[in-house]
Amino acid sequence: MNKIIILAAFLFSSLFAFSQSEDSVQIRKIANEILKNSTAYSNLRVLCKDVGPRLSGSAGAQKAIEVTAKMLKDAGADTVYLQPAMVTHWERGKPEKAFAQFGYTKRDLKVTAIGNTVATPTGGVSAQVVEVKSMEALAALGKKNIAGKIVFYNIEMDPTFIRTFQAYGTNGAGRRSGPAEASRYGAIGVIVRSLASNVDDHPHTGATLYNDSLPKLSAVAVSTADAEWLSKALKSQPTMKVTYTTNCKMFPDVLSYNVIGEKRGTVYPGEIITVGGHLDSWDLAEGAHDDGTGCVQSIEVIRAFTALGIGTKRTIRAVMFMNEENGGGGARAYYDSAKAKKENHIFAMESDAGGFTPRSFSIGAKAPEYEKILSWLPLFYDYGVYEMHKGGGGSDIGPLFSLGAALAGVEPDSQRYFDLHHAETDVFEAVSKRELDLSTVNMAALLWLVCEYGLK
Amino acid sequence: MNKIIILAAFLFSSLFAFSQSEDSVQIRKIANEILKNSTAYSNLRVLCKDVGPRLSGSAGAQKAIEVTAKMLKDAGADTVYLQPAMVTHWERGKPEKAFAQFGYTKRDLKVTAIGNTVATPTGGVSAQVVEVKSMEALAALGKKNIAGKIVFYNIEMDPTFIRTFQAYGTNGAGRRSGPAEASRYGAIGVIVRSLASNVDDHPHTGATLYNDSLPKLSAVAVSTADAEWLSKALKSQPTMKVTYTTNCKMFPDVLSYNVIGEKRGTVYPGEIITVGGHLDSWDLAEGAHDDGTGCVQSIEVIRAFTALGIGTKRTIRAVMFMNEENGGGGARAYYDSAKAKKENHIFAMESDAGGFTPRSFSIGAKAPEYEKILSWLPLFYDYGVYEMHKGGGGSDIGPLFSLGAALAGVEPDSQRYFDLHHAETDVFEAVSKRELDLSTVNMAALLWLVCEYGLK
Repeated sequence: MNKIIILAAFLFSSLFAFSQSEDSVQIRKIANEILKNSTAYSNLRVLCKDVGPRLSGSAGAQKAIEVTAKMLKDAGADTVYLQPAMVTHWERGKPEKAFAQFGYTKRDLKVTAIGNTVATPTGGVSAQVVEVKSMEALAALGKKNIAGKIVFYNIEMDPTFIRTFQAYGTNGAGRRSGPAEASRYGAIGVIVRSLASNVDDHPHTGATLYNDSLPKLSAVAVSTADAEWLSKALKSQPTMKVTYTTNCKMFPDVLSYNVIGEKRGTVYPGEIITVGGHLDSWDLAEGAHDDGTGCVQSIEVIRAFTALGIGTKRTIRAVMFMNEENGGGGARAYYDSAKAKKENHIFAMESDAGGFTPRSFSIGAKAPEYEKILSWLPLFYDYGVYEMHKGGGGSDIGPLFSLGAALAGVEPDSQRYFDLHHAETDVFEAVSKRELDLSTVNMAALLWLVCEYGLK
Repeated sequence: MNKIIILAAFLFSSLFAFSQSEDSVQIRKIANEILKNSTAYSNLRVLCKDVGPRLSGSAGAQKAIEVTAKMLKDAGADTVYLQPAMVTHWERGKPEKAFAQFGYTKRDLKVTAIGNTVATPTGGVSAQVVEVKSMEALAALGKKNIAGKIVFYNIEMDPTFIRTFQAYGTNGAGRRSGPAEASRYGAIGVIVRSLASNVDDHPHTGATLYNDSLPKLSAVAVSTADAEWLSKALKSQPTMKVTYTTNCKMFPDVLSYNVIGEKRGTVYPGEIITVGGHLDSWDLAEGAHDDGTGCVQSIEVIRAFTALGIGTKRTIRAVMFMNEENGGGGARAYYDSAKAKKENHIFAMESDAGGFTPRSFSIGAKAPEYEKILSWLPLFYDYGVYEMHKGGGGSDIGPLFSLGAALAGVEPDSQRYFDLHHAETDVFEAVSKRELDLSTVNMAALLWLVCEYGLK
């Protein structure tokens, strides 16, 4: 290189280093504020213990709306409002029962109805069981082996995926489309091994999608421990019968709300930055990691920015989305409103992968915006984030991409998430205050950078 | 660059990429083996639930020696032996009691004797309390304000340190040297706020170091919740008295053992690679994260290498060190033996920071060895380790540096460690199987690279 180029490079890198150094000081202030004074953990306690389960359309969901609206006001949002959304209304009814029987042996199985499924006929479903390990195996067995029987999807989450969400995606067909596929071959019921990374006694629910042109089958998820027992038992007693009863019902959609807390930008109020999690949870548990943590983190960003008097140039909105678990009504309402009002959404961040130690962000953005976000990555090393890779943001903010928003998905460490996801074990006590706060630090840092500098 | 240099660089980088690619295939095999078939978690259950607390010199420690020797044999070690070590023998005696009293109010305090301390006189210690927030504050108060009183070190772990071990180091003087320093100013007792990152009801013990030229004071750690209560109460009742009783006793050192399982190298048997954790634990809990996990991980490395038939060129030794918590007798015995036998120790790895998700390694090595280890770092990205920085290895392997060994300390995520470290909450249930196994994957990968390539 000649001397002029060297000099220019030196000057450029110095200026860059200077601005990164100023930013790192600001981010250190954000981190200190959150690590010392965060209210995310105490708010989470309220959401888990005072409110508890909050499936869309339930009394718990309504209480969660009122409680988080107050939290947002207390955090310093200048406008807090409820955004109407039509949401799924499914109820479990009386607890499920299931047992296996052969000879004089009768053994109870720990099961939970899969979300959005229909009830069994009165008296339950009782039949022989066909175990399959994949959708391909189901198709290979065909109608003659399946008709009149219960299909048992015993598909394990592959432990060799380092990021457990990949196993959740790869090994989740049994729950997601298993009832619909079993119906195609004339099955009369479905049992799915819980989509869980550990072996224990707690069944995990979650939504399934029926095929409207086929009969809708009742379906239960069985605990992983009982799935292993059942699989073993079927080898020695292939003609044994299993009986199960579910009492759930799908009702017409009902009116509910997203809860929104906004701080209006002072310089570019029309540029909107969203940060959110979902407020609804499955009915089995407290919805701590899924997704109470995403909600209280979003509220905490508003609180920390208010306390520090920062992040004021652009409009920032914390959104508690309703109905992520079994319908997506809240996400649709938010998108529809944004589109109708021609809002200018520049950035949206979603935290819906648990309140664990921060590891990375997945970024859904066009090339120049992605490059700009990626240039900030070194600012995050000190706080445990070494990676920002291309990907989506999450199901609640995904639609905003088509309105021009860049997306970011918070990716905390995923090792423990599927031990408790959608199960009764997803409780407040499973959340570490420090992990939760440190993840919030990284969220707030990225949001502050976008508030301050925009993405153009 | 001229063309020859470009070509050379291209060839070199291709060769490098090729060898890294071969290595990454091997490491993927190691990861799959451990993630699918690891026995670390089931071995940890045995160590926590069947053995339980295992303070040096106790019956529990002896049982742990026998149990882990068998585990090492089952894992495939070709030689398993017990290495004699003289170790500290301190006993807690009857449980501690403590209460605060003013007027008609009497409130119990949750305390635990600090490790290696003396008992109170019969009837306990009863006196007014002087609260200090630092060792400097203690010195400033001086003898006239301290003599005849109980010193209360109310030093919080600073939550703004991202790596909690830094706060443990920075804010730990109250426990480590507090009893000795308080004695210097004529105090008659010591209460230390538990060195913990959360606020709860479980006191945390740990060792202290007396000054042999000063009277030895009894000392207790109080739970963080009670420390906060006490601090507040002292503001309104500065003359209130606290009474506490401890019944502990230090006995002469006793004979115990390190447990060693070895696979002898086939090509360079004289080059020794050590991997270890410590077998002793405090008496309050099951010693799950501290340091049952380090022990079962070390055993698992032997099992996985045996199962895969790899890591055979150099000698690898899994060592369960005794007496790390309150004396270091095991570390001394291992070093003394290595020195006496003129063993060639090329590398030692210690896992004593909990069985959490892996984050980084701290490396203590001379420049060329450090560079060689650092060149392997990209192989670890897929498994969550993005960083290898200069540092020590840990107290059990530290002395081996002077014998020429490069050292590596396993650094898992530290956010939850000091919630349970040295407290009754450090139990098997606090360990995640996936986190434990993934950390073992990273340990095994680095150990395999050293086994395969050496460090010269």
